Amino acid sequence: MAETPKEPAQAAEASKGIRKGRFEAGMDPLFAAFNSSVSFDKRLYAEDIAGSIAHASMLAAQGIIPAEDAAAIIRGLKDVRGDIESGKLAFSEELEDVHINVETALKEKIGAPAGRLHTARSRNDQVALDLRLYLVNRSRLVFEDLVTLIANIVDKAEGEIDVIMPGYTHLQRAQPVRFSHHFLAYGQMFKRDLERFQGALPRIAVSPLGSAALAGSTFPVDRRMAAQELGLAHVCANSMDAVSDRDFVVEFIFNAALTMTHLSRLAEELIIWSSTEFGFCTLPDAFCSGSSIMPQKKNPDACELVRGKTGRVYGDLMGILTTLKSLPLAYNKDLQEDKEPLFDALDTVRACLGIMGGLVPGIALNHERLAEAAADPSLAATDLADQLTREGTPFREAHERIGAMVRQGGTGEGLPSPEAMVEARNHEGGTARAGVLQQIAALREWLATAMPS
Amino acid sequence: MAETPKEPAQAAEASKGIRKGRFEAGMDPLFAAFNSSVSFDKRLYAEDIAGSIAHASMLAAQGIIPAEDAAAIIRGLKDVRGDIESGKLAFSEELEDVHINVETALKEKIGAPAGRLHTARSRNDQVALDLRLYLVNRSRLVFEDLVTLIANIVDKAEGEIDVIMPGYTHLQRAQPVRFSHHFLAYGQMFKRDLERFQGALPRIAVSPLGSAALAGSTFPVDRRMAAQELGLAHVCANSMDAVSDRDFVVEFIFNAALTMTHLSRLAEELIIWSSTEFGFCTLPDAFCSGSSIMPQKKNPDACELVRGKTGRVYGDLMGILTTLKSLPLAYNKDLQEDKEPLFDALDTVRACLGIMGGLVPGIALNHERLAEAAADPSLAATDLADQLTREGTPFREAHERIGAMVRQGGTGEGLPSPEAMVEARNHEGGTARAGVLQQIAALREWLATAMPS
Amino acid sequence: MAETPKEPAQAAEASKGIRKGRFEAGMDPLFAAFNSSVSFDKRLYAEDIAGSIAHASMLAAQGIIPAEDAAAIIRGLKDVRGDIESGKLAFSEELEDVHINVETALKEKIGAPAGRLHTARSRNDQVALDLRLYLVNRSRLVFEDLVTLIANIVDKAEGEIDVIMPGYTHLQRAQPVRFSHHFLAYGQMFKRDLERFQGALPRIAVSPLGSAALAGSTFPVDRRMAAQELGLAHVCANSMDAVSDRDFVVEFIFNAALTMTHLSRLAEELIIWSSTEFGFCTLPDAFCSGSSIMPQKKNPDACELVRGKTGRVYGDLMGILTTLKSLPLAYNKDLQEDKEPLFDALDTVRACLGIMGGLVPGIALNHERLAEAAADPSLAATDLADQLTREGTPFREAHERIGAMVRQGGTGEGLPSPEAMVEARNHEGGTARAGVLQQIAALREWLATAMPS
Amino acid sequence: MAETPKEPAQAAEASKGIRKGRFEAGMDPLFAAFNSSVSFDKRLYAEDIAGSIAHASMLAAQGIIPAEDAAAIIRGLKDVRGDIESGKLAFSEELEDVHINVETALKEKIGAPAGRLHTARSRNDQVALDLRLYLVNRSRLVFEDLVTLIANIVDKAEGEIDVIMPGYTHLQRAQPVRFSHHFLAYGQMFKRDLERFQGALPRIAVSPLGSAALAGSTFPVDRRMAAQELGLAHVCANSMDAVSDRDFVVEFIFNAALTMTHLSRLAEELIIWSSTEFGFCTLPDAFCSGSSIMPQKKNPDACELVRGKTGRVYGDLMGILTTLKSLPLAYNKDLQEDKEPLFDALDTVRACLGIMGGLVPGIALNHERLAEAAADPSLAATDLADQLTREGTPFREAHERIGAMVRQGGTGEGLPSPEAMVEARNHEGGTARAGVLQQIAALREWLATAMPS
Repeated sequence: MAETPKEPAQAAEASKGIRKGRFEAGMDPLFAAFNSSVSFDKRLYAEDIAGSIAHASMLAAQGIIPAEDAAAIIRGLKDVRGDIESGKLAFSEELEDVHINVETALKEKIGAPAGRLHTARSRNDQVALDLRLYLVNRSRLVFEDLVTLIANIVDKAEGEIDVIMPGYTHLQRAQPVRFSHHFLAYGQMFKRDLERFQGALPRIAVSPLGSAALAGSTFPVDRRMAAQELGLAHVCANSMDAVSDRDFVVEFIFNAALTMTHLSRLAEELIIWSSTEFGFCTLPDAFCSGSSIMPQKKNPDACELVRGKTGRVYGDLMGILTTLKSLPLAYNKDLQEDKEPLFDALDTVRACLGIMGGLVPGIALNHERLAEAAADPSLAATDLADQLTREGTPFREAHERIGAMVRQGGTGEGLPSPEAMVEARNHEGGTARAGVLQQIAALREWLATAMPS
Repeated sequence: MAETPKEPAQAAEASKGIRKGRFEAGMDPLFAAFNSSVSFDKRLYAEDIAGSIAHASMLAAQGIIPAEDAAAIIRGLKDVRGDIESGKLAFSEELEDVHINVETALKEKIGAPAGRLHTARSRNDQVALDLRLYLVNRSRLVFEDLVTLIANIVDKAEGEIDVIMPGYTHLQRAQPVRFSHHFLAYGQMFKRDLERFQGALPRIAVSPLGSAALAGSTFPVDRRMAAQELGLAHVCANSMDAVSDRDFVVEFIFNAALTMTHLSRLAEELIIWSSTEFGFCTLPDAFCSGSSIMPQKKNPDACELVRGKTGRVYGDLMGILTTLKSLPLAYNKDLQEDKEPLFDALDTVRACLGIMGGLVPGIALNHERLAEAAADPSLAATDLADQLTREGTPFREAHERIGAMVRQGGTGEGLPSPEAMVEARNHEGGTARAGVLQQIAALREWLATAMPS
Repeated sequence: MAETPKEPAQAAEASKGIRKGRFEAGMDPLFAAFNSSVSFDKRLYAEDIAGSIAHASMLAAQGIIPAEDAAAIIRGLKDVRGDIESGKLAFSEELEDVHINVETALKEKIGAPAGRLHTARSRNDQVALDLRLYLVNRSRLVFEDLVTLIANIVDKAEGEIDVIMPGYTHLQRAQPVRFSHHFLAYGQMFKRDLERFQGALPRIAVSPLGSAALAGSTFPVDRRMAAQELGLAHVCANSMDAVSDRDFVVEFIFNAALTMTHLSRLAEELIIWSSTEFGFCTLPDAFCSGSSIMPQKKNPDACELVRGKTGRVYGDLMGILTTLKSLPLAYNKDLQEDKEPLFDALDTVRACLGIMGGLVPGIALNHERLAEAAADPSLAATDLADQLTREGTPFREAHERIGAMVRQGGTGEGLPSPEAMVEARNHEGGTARAGVLQQIAALREWLATAMPS
Repeated sequence: MAETPKEPAQAAEASKGIRKGRFEAGMDPLFAAFNSSVSFDKRLYAEDIAGSIAHASMLAAQGIIPAEDAAAIIRGLKDVRGDIESGKLAFSEELEDVHINVETALKEKIGAPAGRLHTARSRNDQVALDLRLYLVNRSRLVFEDLVTLIANIVDKAEGEIDVIMPGYTHLQRAQPVRFSHHFLAYGQMFKRDLERFQGALPRIAVSPLGSAALAGSTFPVDRRMAAQELGLAHVCANSMDAVSDRDFVVEFIFNAALTMTHLSRLAEELIIWSSTEFGFCTLPDAFCSGSSIMPQKKNPDACELVRGKTGRVYGDLMGILTTLKSLPLAYNKDLQEDKEPLFDALDTVRACLGIMGGLVPGIALNHERLAEAAADPSLAATDLADQLTREGTPFREAHERIGAMVRQGGTGEGLPSPEAMVEARNHEGGTARAGVLQQIAALREWLATAMPS
C-alpha cells in the first residue's frame, strides 16, 4: 500500500505552475492562444467532473487518499458542475483547458484537498476518458435521432402505401415502384447506420483511467472499480495504447460521414422531386426559404444544406485520419486536434438528422403527377419483353423488338397497368404491396428494440 | 407459377446486342473504352460464376427454367471457370465487363440454354452479389494477415520481455517502459482492426439476388434459397437499396484506412528507431534497400513504403465517399467506380500487413543502447516527484524542485532503477512484467479464437 | 577540374548490385515485389532517356567523362528507346524501376561506357527530373483537351444562341436565360482551369539535375546547360529541396481535381436535363448505353462515369497530400507513392475531358420543351416586381403581392415575354444576346492564343 | 434609362419579410437555426459594407437611384461600420446573415432610402463579392506571414552558415550538408507557396456585382465602375458563373493545404531534432510546454500542433471539393458551406505561419552535437567511393568495397573532413558555402520585391 501524501498534492496546475522549475521563459502570447483548448474542450466539463468523481472514489477506496478528502473533492466537483450549469462559473481561456479550469475552480471551493485529485492520473488518461464518456453519452442521442428519422420514414411509407411512381436507374425511368418501397430504401440505409454506430459503442466504452501519462501509475489503483462506477464495461488493456488511441473518434466520424452520404442522397432526391419539372412533391414551407429578389421562389434550402454539409463531415474524417497518420507513441500534442472534427461531425450529423426527421412527415406527394408518370408506357418495356419471352420469343429478339417500339415513340397496346407490374414483383424485398408491408412490419419490430435500455 | 420460356432467353448480351433496337448509332470508340470495366472487374470471375451457379439452381428448383438447362448451365460455368484458371480463356475488352465475358463463354460452351441464365436477374443485382461474395472471401484473408501480424508482435514482445527502454510522449523521453509493453500497444490496435473487419462481415454477407434491375423480379424467385447456397445468411430487405447500396464497400475501405493508420505509426517508429541517433534497432536486411550512390546506406524502404501507402488508402476512402455523395436511387453508372478503390485498398492493406508481419520477427533490438537510454536520469523525474510527494512535500513544490534539477543538468543521486520504476506500475494494463505477461496471455487466448471456423 | 575516372563507373546498378557489400541477406521476395515500381514508372522511359542524354552531353562538355563515351551513351540510349517503342525491349519487374531497366539495356548495348552515365547523378535527382519532364509534356496535352472542350462549348452556344430556357437557382426555376449563356458558364470554368494548369507550368519546368542524392555533386557539373538542353528555363535553387519536392505533382493533381469538379457539374446537369421529366435535351447515342433487362432505356453512362470519376481524382489529391505530410528532408521512399495518383489523375481528367469534348457537339436540344418551360409565368415574377417597383410600389410590397399571386397559381396578365426579359439584362456578363455574343467573341479570341507556341 | 423608383424599395429584407406572400407557414425553429449563417459570415461585415458603398455610388452615377439617397446610404453604412467596430451594434442570429443584419441596421439609421440599396442586386452576387473582397484583403496578410517566415529562415541560415550536420535520406545519415542549406530548403518551399498564393490573386479579384440573382440586372448597371471603385481589375464574364463560382475559395484552401504540408515537414524535423537522441537543437521555451506529471519534460507542443493542424486544412479542402461536386447551376444553398472551411483554413495557416515565424529565430542549435554527428565516418562513404572511382576503380567495385567497410564498422583512415565534403559540392544549388550564400542573397533579393506595393 502506498503511503498517502502527508500534505495534499497540488494538482490543479495551471500551465504557469507546470512550467515553473523546468522553464526559464514564459509562454509567447501567440503560442499561449495557439495552445489553449478550453474554447472547445469545455464541452467535456460534465464528463470531466464525472470522471474525477469516479477517480476520487477509487483513490479513497484504495486508501491512496483519505476518505474525507475524497468526500470534499466529490462535493466540490458537484458544486463546480452546478456553477457551470447555472452560468456562475465562466471558463477562462488562460487556464488552457477544461481540466485546469475545473481543478482551479475546485481548489477555490475546497482548498488544499483539491490537490490530491490528480494523484495517479495525468491529463493524458484524463482527456481520453472524458472524450470516451462524452461519446458514449452523445452516441445515445444519435441513436435517438436515427430512430426518429427511420420511424418517420416508415410512417410516411405506410401512409402512402398505394402510391406508385416510376423507379429510376441512371435517373431514367426504369420500372414502376411503390413510393413506399423507394422511400424505405432510405429506412434500410439509416438502419445500417444505426447498427454501425451501435456496433462501435463497445470500442468507445472502455476506460483508460489508471494509464496515467503513458506507463501506468505507481499507486495501487483499481482500474476496474473506477470503470464500473462510470458504466464502462472494460478497461484499456495497454496504458500506452490507452493514452494515444483515438480510433473510437475516427470510427465515430466515419459513421457520421456514411450517414451523411445517405442523407445527401435523400436530400438530392427531394430537391429533384420538388423541381417544377418533376413536381413529384412539395416540401413543407417550414423547411424552405424564399428569395430576396424572386418572389415566386420556394427553395429547398434545408435539403441543400444537408447535402452541402456532407462535405464538412467528409472533411472532418479526412482531417482526423491525416492528423493520426505516422504519430509515434504515446501521447503527442497533435491529438488535441481530435476534438474539433469530432464535435463538428457530431453536431452536423445530429442537426441534419433532426432536420430530415422533421421534414419527412411534411412532404406532400403530388399524387396526380406521380400517377401520370407511373403510367408512362415505356415503364412497361421490361414486362412486355418478359411476357414475349414467356410466350416463346427469344429474349434477345423480344428485347430488340420492344426497344425499337420505344424508339418509334410507342409501346403499343395491351400494356400491363402500373399496379399489375408492381404486384408482379411479389417476393421478399420486392415492390409488391405484401412485400412492402412486410418491410414496414420488420422495421417497426426492429425499431421497438433498437434503443438500448 | 410463371411459365417457363419456350425458347431460352438469350441473356449473354454483349453491349452490341443490348444496344440493338433502342439505338441508332454505335458507341463512340472513346466511350467504349471509357465504359468498359473488364480490365478490373475480371477479378470477380470466380464469384460471378458461383453466383450464377446458385442462381441457376434456384431457377430450376422453382421451375422457372428446366432442370436440364440448369444442369447444362452449371456444368458449363464450371468449365468456363476451369478455362479462365488454366489461362485458356482470355478476357476481352470488347465484351465490356466480367459478366458478359463469362456469359459469352458459356454460350460458346453450351449454346442456347445459356440464354436462360439471365432470367429474373439484371446486371445490377448480379454485380452487387459478385462484389459482396468477393469481399466475404477476401475479408477472411485480411483476418489471417492480421492474425499473423498480431501473433508476430506478441511473440516478439514475449521474446524481449526483459528489455526496458524510454517511453515517449511528444517524442521526448517520459518514463521507462518495457519494449514489450510499447510493442504490444500495436497488438491492441491491430486487434481492434480485426474486430472492426469482422464486425462488418454481417453487413457484407447479404444477398441482393432477386432484386433484378431495381424493383424485384416478376418470376417466382426464392431469394433465401440462392443466398443459402452461397453461404449468405440474409437477403437484402429492399430491392432498390440492394442494387444501389455500396456501404459495405465504403466500410471495408474505411477499415483498411484505419489499419493503415496503425501501420503508419508502427512504420514511423521503426524508421526513427533505426536512425543512427536512436540506434534502438536494426531492421532485417531482407526488408531494406541500399543506395545507388551511397554505399553505407541501409534504408528502411519497407517501412517508408508502408507509411507512404497510407495516403493511397485514405485517398481510396475519400474517392468512394465522394462518388456516392448525392446519388439518387437506384443504380447509377457512377457505381462502377466502386471497384478500383476497393481493390486498391484491399491489395494495399494486405501487402502492408504482409510486409510488416514478415519484418517484425527480424527486428534486432540493440539492447545496449536501449539500456543506456532507459538509464537516463531524467526518466526518473516523475517517480522522484511522486516519492517526494509521498514523503510529504506538496506535489507542486516537488514538481518544481525536480524540474529545476533537470534544468541544471542532473537529477541527483538515489535514483530508482529503470527496473524498479517499471515494476512500480504494476496493475492491469501497466508496464510491469506481470501486467505485460497478462497482456500477452490474453492476446494469445483471443488469437486462438479470432479466426471464424 | 575533377579527374575523369580511368575506368568507367558501373552505374547501371540493379538492386542486387547495389546491395552487395552493405547487405548480408537478399531481399525478401514479398519486399522485392512491394518495392518494385517498374510496373508504373515505365511510363517515364522517354523522359528518363531524354534526361540521360542531356546529362551525358553535359558530362562530356564539362570534361567529366570522355566525349566518345558520351557519344556511345547517347547513341545507345536512342537505340534503347527505339527498342522500347518497337516492343523489342520488355521491362523487367526484377530490375526494380525504369531507371535500372534502361541502364541495364544500355549496358547490354554499349558495354563498359554505360557505367559512366550515372556519374554525378543519383536516382533521387533522376526520378525528379523524369517526372518533371513527363508532366511538362503531358500538361500540353491537357491544355489541348481543354481548348477543344471550350471550343466545342463555344460553338454549341453560338449555334443555339436563340434558345431560351429557365435559369435555375436551388434547382427551382428562377429567371429566363439563354441556353448559350448557361452553357458558356462552363466555358468560363474550363478557361480558369486552363489558366491554372498553365500558371503551374513554371513551377514544373525546373531542373533538379545536379542535386545528386541530396547535397549536390562533387563533379564540376553545369546545371544550366543540362536544363537548357531539356527546354527547362530554370534549375532548382536548393539540392535538398530538389530531391524531396513534389509540390508540382500535388498542384497538378489539384488542378485536375478542380477540373473534375466542373466536369461533374456539367455531367450532373446533362443527366438531369435528359431525364424524361426535364426532357431538355437528348444525349448522342454514341455516348449512351442500354440496359440488359430494360429495352426502353437509354442511359447517360458517359456523364455518370465522368461524375463518378470525380471521386477518384479527389482521392488522388488526398492521397498525395497525406503521403507528403510530415516527411523529413530529403528523399524518403514514401515519395515513390507520387506516381500512381499522378498518373491516375492525369489519365482520368484527360479521359473525361475527351469524353465531354466529344459529347458536347452531339447534344440535341429539345427546343419545344425549352420554350415551353421558359414561358412559365412564374419566371416573370422578378420582372413584374421590378416593374411595380419602378412604377412606385415599394419593393417589399411588390415582392409580397407577386409572391401571393404565385401561391394562388397565377401571375396574371401582361407578362413580359421570355425574350423581353432576357434582353432586359443587357450588360457585360448578362444574358442578353449582345452580351452573350460578346462572351463568345472574347472566348474565341482568348482560345486563339491559349496554346503556347 | 430605367425609371428610378418613386418610392424607395425596401431592401433590408429579414427572412420573415422575404417569406411573406409566397409562404403560408413560418420557419421551423430548428430549420431557422440550421439556415442562419450570421454566426460565421459576420466576419464579412467590412467587405459587405465596402461593396454596398461601391454599389450605391454606381447606382447614383447611373441615375438608377437619386444621388441624395446614395449619399444617405453611404453615410449610413459608414455609421453602421463604426457601430460594429465600436461594439455598439451586435449581430442578431434572427436576421439570418451578415447582409440582412447590415441592411436592417442601415434602415434604422436612415429609414426609407435604405430600401434602394438592394436595387439591381441579389444576395447571390452580394455574398460572392463580399467573399472575394475578403479574400483579397486576407491574402495580403498571408503574403506578409510568409514573407516574415521566409525572412526569419534566411536570417537563421545566414547566422549559422558555418554549421555542418548530417544530411539525411530515409532518415539515415547520407552526406554532410550545411545546416543553412537544409534549412533554406524550407525557404524554397515557402517561396513557392507565396508565389502560388499570389498567382491566385487575379482569379480572386474579379467583381461579380451586377450578376444579380443569376442572369444579370434589368437596370442599366455599370459593372466596371463598381469594380474599379473596389480595386478589382476585372468583372466576371458570365453572370451565372459569377454567382455559382467558388473556385477561388477552393484554390485558396488548396494553397493553404500545401503550405501546411511544408509546415508539417519543418515541424516534424524540429520535433525529431529536439529529441534527446538527436539533440540537434533546443526549441525556445516560449513555444514549448511542460507536463503536469513529469517535471523534466519540455515538449515541442507548438510544432506538434502545427503538424496536427495539417489534418484540419486537408479536411477543409476535402470538404469544399465535396460540397461543390455535381452542383447544377446557378446558386445553390450548398454554397453557404463555403465559408467555414475557408475561414478555418485561413485562420489555421495564418496561426501556424505566425507560430513558426516566431519560433524559428529562437531555435538554439547544439553545435557540438551537430559537429560530432557530421564527423560520422559513414558520411564519407560516397566521397570515398567517388575518390576510388576517380582513381580508376570501377564504380561498382568501389561501391562494394566501401559498403563492406561500413558493415564491418569502419570506413578506414584518410577520411575527407565534413568541411571538405561540403565544399566539394560547389555549384548552383549545392551545399558549399558559396552556393548557400548565393541562395541567401537570391532569396533576400526576391523578398525585397515579394510584397505587392
